[in-house]
Amino acid sequence: MYVSATPADRLQSRVAFVGGRAGQWTVSAQQTWVGASLPPVRRLSMQPAAEPSPEAAQWRFEGFTSNARYATRHEISALRAVQEGLGRPQARHAALILIRKSPAWWALAQDERRAIFEESSRHTAIGLAYLPAVARQLHHSRDLGEPFDFLTWFEFPADTTRRFEQLVRALRATPEWDYVDREVELRLERAA
Amino acid sequence: MYVSATPADRLQSRVAFVGGRAGQWTVSAQQTWVGASLPPVRRLSMQPAAEPSPEAAQWRFEGFTSNARYATRHEISALRAVQEGLGRPQARHAALILIRKSPAWWALAQDERRAIFEESSRHTAIGLAYLPAVARQLHHSRDLGEPFDFLTWFEFPADTTRRFEQLVRALRATPEWDYVDREVELRLERAA
Repeated sequence: MYVSATPADRLQSRVAFVGGRAGQWTVSAQQTWVGASLPPVRRLSMQPAAEPSPEAAQWRFEGFTSNARYATRHEISALRAVQEGLGRPQARHAALILIRKSPAWWALAQDERRAIFEESSRHTAIGLAYLPAVARQLHHSRDLGEPFDFLTWFEFPADTTRRFEQLVRALRATPEWDYVDREVELRLERAA
Repeated sequence: MYVSATPADRLQSRVAFVGGRAGQWTVSAQQTWVGASLPPVRRLSMQPAAEPSPEAAQWRFEGFTSNARYATRHEISALRAVQEGLGRPQARHAALILIRKSPAWWALAQDERRAIFEESSRHTAIGLAYLPAVARQLHHSRDLGEPFDFLTWFEFPADTTRRFEQLVRALRATPEWDYVDREVELRLERAA
């Protein structure tokens, strides 16, 4: 008997974002906010990590969904009361924001990171103000040894684009973002 | 240009524990505390995950070291002031404790998990009382889709075995352990 380390049913939370010439999302803009850029791509595939990448991929990043790392019970309840899921038919616009935080961030203790994340930057409170218009899903990458620490996916209707832009502008203005040392943003639209 | 998702230098924190008939550690006892057992093995190899497993392995589990999830700055400073590293020549005894926590644990918010972990169970405070005799290293597995959530490695001198046993007994008596739904322990000695 050989015990498999990774039963397939526990890997469903692993997602791959593959940039290239194929995928259900058309790239309308690709911007580097800080740090090294990524090769420009025309399409993006968001897919289970277990599936093979489309041909001619330029890059591929993986992440996993996980338990909340900072949110209190009160904050989780507030989010759940108003947030909507991915895949809404009217949400034909999307964004993928790839972020790496500095070694200084990761050297902080839990109470120090929480204080920056919420008490001084109000990360959850800011996001809450843009729900349910902007749906979000956070994917963790750092513990996979990936180049980015977080891959955040946003979906929103076309007429909510301004609201999305306000949201990310508000977050980038926080003390938490002083610890972001690489950030690349892709803006996307559903292909056909 | 194809951007690799996992640069080798960022994967150094990934460790594999491989049970079978080879490895630098001899298994002196293997005990299942709760949940399903593991096939018994004679030897254990602790190795970088990138290296191939020894032949005739019975099982293999991987984990990664990561940032502290609960410890405050004060607690981290207290630990650092007294803890010692792995690989001390006199620490010829070791233990590998494989743990899975219940879905109920993972559904808790950060403040709820922290309150159980430290304010009611005193996990860090208990561990601190056994430093520097017992050296520890926590490896995270859950986000890799592994069967266990945590692989904790302990090293201690032979004459500290009783202290190690007191430590794990104290932890198993805490409210935190109500959330442990699988636990297997291997006791080990350095092979000549």
